[in-house]
Amino acid sequence: MPQELDATQAQSPEKVERFRAPELDAVLGQAFKVLDDGFVRVVDYMGSDASIVQAARVSYGSGTKRVHEDRGLIRYLLRHRHTTPFEMCEIKLHVRVPMDCWRQWIRHRTASVNEYSTRYSVAIDAAQRTPPGEWRLQAAGNRQGSAGFIDPEKGAVLSAKEEELHRLTRRYYEERLRAGVAREQARKDLPLSTYTEAYWKIDLHNLLHFLALRMDDHAQEEIRAYACLIGNEIVRRWMPIAWEAFQDYRMQALELSRLEVDVIAAIGRGDSRAATDLARGFGWLEEGPKGLKPNRERQELEEKLDRLSLPVPWRRQD
Amino acid sequence: MPQELDATQAQSPEKVERFRAPELDAVLGQAFKVLDDGFVRVVDYMGSDASIVQAARVSYGSGTKRVHEDRGLIRYLLRHRHTTPFEMCEIKLHVRVPMDCWRQWIRHRTASVNEYSTRYSVAIDAAQRTPPGEWRLQAAGNRQGSAGFIDPEKGAVLSAKEEELHRLTRRYYEERLRAGVAREQARKDLPLSTYTEAYWKIDLHNLLHFLALRMDDHAQEEIRAYACLIGNEIVRRWMPIAWEAFQDYRMQALELSRLEVDVIAAIGRGDSRAATDLARGFGWLEEGPKGLKPNRERQELEEKLDRLSLPVPWRRQD
Amino acid sequence: MPQELDATQAQSPEKVERFRAPELDAVLGQAFKVLDDGFVRVVDYMGSDASIVQAARVSYGSGTKRVHEDRGLIRYLLRHRHTTPFEMCEIKLHVRVPMDCWRQWIRHRTASVNEYSTRYSVAIDAAQRTPPGEWRLQAAGNRQGSAGFIDPEKGAVLSAKEEELHRLTRRYYEERLRAGVAREQARKDLPLSTYTEAYWKIDLHNLLHFLALRMDDHAQEEIRAYACLIGNEIVRRWMPIAWEAFQDYRMQALELSRLEVDVIAAIGRGDSRAATDLARGFGWLEEGPKGLKPNRERQELEEKLDRLSLPVPWRRQD
Amino acid sequence: MPQELDATQAQSPEKVERFRAPELDAVLGQAFKVLDDGFVRVVDYMGSDASIVQAARVSYGSGTKRVHEDRGLIRYLLRHRHTTPFEMCEIKLHVRVPMDCWRQWIRHRTASVNEYSTRYSVAIDAAQRTPPGEWRLQAAGNRQGSAGFIDPEKGAVLSAKEEELHRLTRRYYEERLRAGVAREQARKDLPLSTYTEAYWKIDLHNLLHFLALRMDDHAQEEIRAYACLIGNEIVRRWMPIAWEAFQDYRMQALELSRLEVDVIAAIGRGDSRAATDLARGFGWLEEGPKGLKPNRERQELEEKLDRLSLPVPWRRQD
Repeated sequence: MPQELDATQAQSPEKVERFRAPELDAVLGQAFKVLDDGFVRVVDYMGSDASIVQAARVSYGSGTKRVHEDRGLIRYLLRHRHTTPFEMCEIKLHVRVPMDCWRQWIRHRTASVNEYSTRYSVAIDAAQRTPPGEWRLQAAGNRQGSAGFIDPEKGAVLSAKEEELHRLTRRYYEERLRAGVAREQARKDLPLSTYTEAYWKIDLHNLLHFLALRMDDHAQEEIRAYACLIGNEIVRRWMPIAWEAFQDYRMQALELSRLEVDVIAAIGRGDSRAATDLARGFGWLEEGPKGLKPNRERQELEEKLDRLSLPVPWRRQD
Repeated sequence: MPQELDATQAQSPEKVERFRAPELDAVLGQAFKVLDDGFVRVVDYMGSDASIVQAARVSYGSGTKRVHEDRGLIRYLLRHRHTTPFEMCEIKLHVRVPMDCWRQWIRHRTASVNEYSTRYSVAIDAAQRTPPGEWRLQAAGNRQGSAGFIDPEKGAVLSAKEEELHRLTRRYYEERLRAGVAREQARKDLPLSTYTEAYWKIDLHNLLHFLALRMDDHAQEEIRAYACLIGNEIVRRWMPIAWEAFQDYRMQALELSRLEVDVIAAIGRGDSRAATDLARGFGWLEEGPKGLKPNRERQELEEKLDRLSLPVPWRRQD
Repeated sequence: MPQELDATQAQSPEKVERFRAPELDAVLGQAFKVLDDGFVRVVDYMGSDASIVQAARVSYGSGTKRVHEDRGLIRYLLRHRHTTPFEMCEIKLHVRVPMDCWRQWIRHRTASVNEYSTRYSVAIDAAQRTPPGEWRLQAAGNRQGSAGFIDPEKGAVLSAKEEELHRLTRRYYEERLRAGVAREQARKDLPLSTYTEAYWKIDLHNLLHFLALRMDDHAQEEIRAYACLIGNEIVRRWMPIAWEAFQDYRMQALELSRLEVDVIAAIGRGDSRAATDLARGFGWLEEGPKGLKPNRERQELEEKLDRLSLPVPWRRQD
Repeated sequence: MPQELDATQAQSPEKVERFRAPELDAVLGQAFKVLDDGFVRVVDYMGSDASIVQAARVSYGSGTKRVHEDRGLIRYLLRHRHTTPFEMCEIKLHVRVPMDCWRQWIRHRTASVNEYSTRYSVAIDAAQRTPPGEWRLQAAGNRQGSAGFIDPEKGAVLSAKEEELHRLTRRYYEERLRAGVAREQARKDLPLSTYTEAYWKIDLHNLLHFLALRMDDHAQEEIRAYACLIGNEIVRRWMPIAWEAFQDYRMQALELSRLEVDVIAAIGRGDSRAATDLARGFGWLEEGPKGLKPNRERQELEEKLDRLSLPVPWRRQD
């Protein structure tokens, strides 16, 4: 059960203490391990589930007091995609992450960052290693994904060459430094797998947006590992009520386009033929030599129909 | 039919001209009227549907050329909530709007603004007037909405007093100026209905987000009038393909929460009882003296079920 | 003397507590009064001077440990306009402020805001009042400023009419509500002087930027009162070292343009004539019927020369 | 001489064409080369010097018409660090840049970016090469800078090893792809020197801020080469008046801290002793065995005094 909210601050005009999240306090500073040599640590934070309630209540004035209790209010706000009350909470993490992964991470612009400087200091002597069984195969259907693993025997060859590469790039990096080359230039051929560290500070609204994108199946496995850890180990402890609402109303939500709504409404009326005609009109049912041609939008709808236990009108019953 | 995209720039390494949107060029500078004395004019813009394609193609490299044609690519990007290609287009509007409405407008932070300064110059001598038949009643169900109109005879009294107020506040404002009071202070009691003007510049991604919120039924009527005009008269001309995709995948989309998916899946399996039990477990079916108590989340689902032509399991068939 | 920084967190890999600012804790929740009915309260915060040091140290790695002690590092960072370490601290204020002033405040976009909603609730029954002796005169030289006060006897007339206006606008507002008009529409003629309330959350970097602009002589007196209070009563307690550095390197700094540097270098060489020729070449010394014509850039330089105790070459010695 | 501004749009209520920058139009789409294999191309833009004037004039209403002519207004706005009128102009560049340099570039968050995806497509087969004479030495005084070059004979060895590294990393990358490894994983050991491409869109205000930081002496040489090109070849053509003002009031400006002002004022009064006492009080004149100890703030002031042709009171005249 989610904790009781500390209602003191929300109601009293003259509060005396900052909001606290006791479960998060218990792991403050503790390094959660990710990948072979990465980690995430909570360094500082501001706010708790109660801050969301407090912020929303100023918007609504006294008008809302009776209507909602706190948990219901947080869930209502998240369901209706309110954003500002969630911006009122901040968290500051210390992360250690391969540069290749950091390149994706840093694309989220609404965060504050202080990264370890390899202009100023010698680069961290660690690069992400791939064990023989963890070389991922290029996905066939999805040009930017992976699916399954390479045979570990073949993988062992790749891993050995990877190790050779890491040793060689590091040796040449250090040779450059010994020759007096400026750190800012010596680093130029370090592999993207080199670890970096950073403080990363972000508000809850933008963090949830980051997590929605990066915990998703389509995110690259490495950043997904970080995102899942941040969500499941950190946000869950920090904001138990908001986290639960985020699962119910965002992560496990299902969105239907206007086209999909039209098709389902025909199914709902029991008119399979109209549903099929609509889909055909949208160009989703083109025939090829081996049956229906692959069509992304149709496949997306089929998955949704399956999840809703609704029939796929153009699927043959065998 | 959407216009043909000018594919020249998208493909040639050395382009010679800026992207153009011919339909928008035709209304450049023209004032579209809103409310009793407001307007919106397009002052400048950058990009067209073709810019979205161009931006997306650099991300995908040559890999995507065969797969998608332009319209399909734009629709795919919008459906999957890609944002950066839509940020590549900018529009700059000149608007005239009551300050009360502007107070809501300006809450969208990802825009650039130059507003008419009533510190520097004398305030615009116009305030939004309400005709006798346009005084809106407070909504009963929705604390922040309106529903229906006040009887025009009563409204005439309110309108007369409004006019009196406008005259008096202006007279006192001008008296202060004549007495030598600084403009920055003299303005302090102008009514919120006073018109202001501004240049407002925003990228397409953030503009669509603004429109999704402000064209919505729940937006206040005044800002909704501006948003509808910007969408239907301006964005439609500027970005015919993206605008159509925005209708299909955002404005008329329907989102189901994890809880709603569970209930519909039970309906899909033909198990009304399980669906009802789920809803009851969520607290949506509490009984009061006059039948089911009002419950926002249940009512939202009922509307969605109606739109999908699916049965409401707990609704009595008469 | 600035407090000792708590170096524990900055150095230890596994910290156990959040950063604290003891002097700020002492006033947490306490309302500081501004204007006739406004206030500012600190509701929550994250970080302290030590957070700035911590963030900077991750950028510099171990390379910097010996070189700088903490105070020197903070001062160095502020002097060289580093920004990211200052973004690592957040503060959340609860403010009560006239809407006219809030209109300026809200133009700072890099903050999070939850404002009291007059759509949802009845507007706050208070408007900023002007005592007879506080009606400011329009500045002659500066079109957007004020200078001196109107004769209090005349002011008494203005204040009486102001009070009449406040009473009348409130009466009509309440009449509209009683007639059933929606709150969102009834409020349309409230005066700009009506008080609103909000939670306002911002990071230290952006807060200092806000303060640099709004504590300035050219800021309007009302917002300046808020900014001075936030700086002198709140940031000074929160960040004693950064606040002192901000005074030395930002608020009391003096910037010279390339043109001004050229003129001063001529003065430094003892070549008054060359200095005057340069100024003439810049168009700063045009003669009118009554001596030198007013020229903003020349006047700015003259003030700077006075502050630097350097002679103004074109000023006649009498 | 800066071009005449097209005043048509600024004044006419109903304009018919977008603002144009003829000198920029002349190089639209043309690739300016940087480093061994990089480039910058202007792909699209919005606005010109005249847009800045237009935006400022709406703020000031009709009040300013007589006072300023256009060039003076732009210079005034830049001198007083006004920002919003400069936000009204946008530029979209296509750049090709080593990832190491791009890592710095992307830290500027107020821009829109679409980068070439090495998840989706095969990585660009080019890495930045260093000729034997261009290996830079680590700076002694500045931990994050470089100064001078390594002996080209030694450099030739480093360049040869660099080439070996580039060949090897590419070979292993391609081996991974042939083995079926997903592109998103195969890329993990590419060197930071690998070229990437992106569309980068930013407004003029934020672009000038980027240029002020990255054209600076302290910026790393690679990004500085890009920044100088963007400034000198592109912004100069796009915004001739604003660019000139930017040189005079930002790039070549000189900022004095409160402490420096105090010292200079003592010098101005002819009181060298007081000036020296002040500096000593600030801790700038500590004696070591070999004369004055190095002190960053004193050295900064000495450079400023030299630029102003003012005497350094504690410097011995020989």
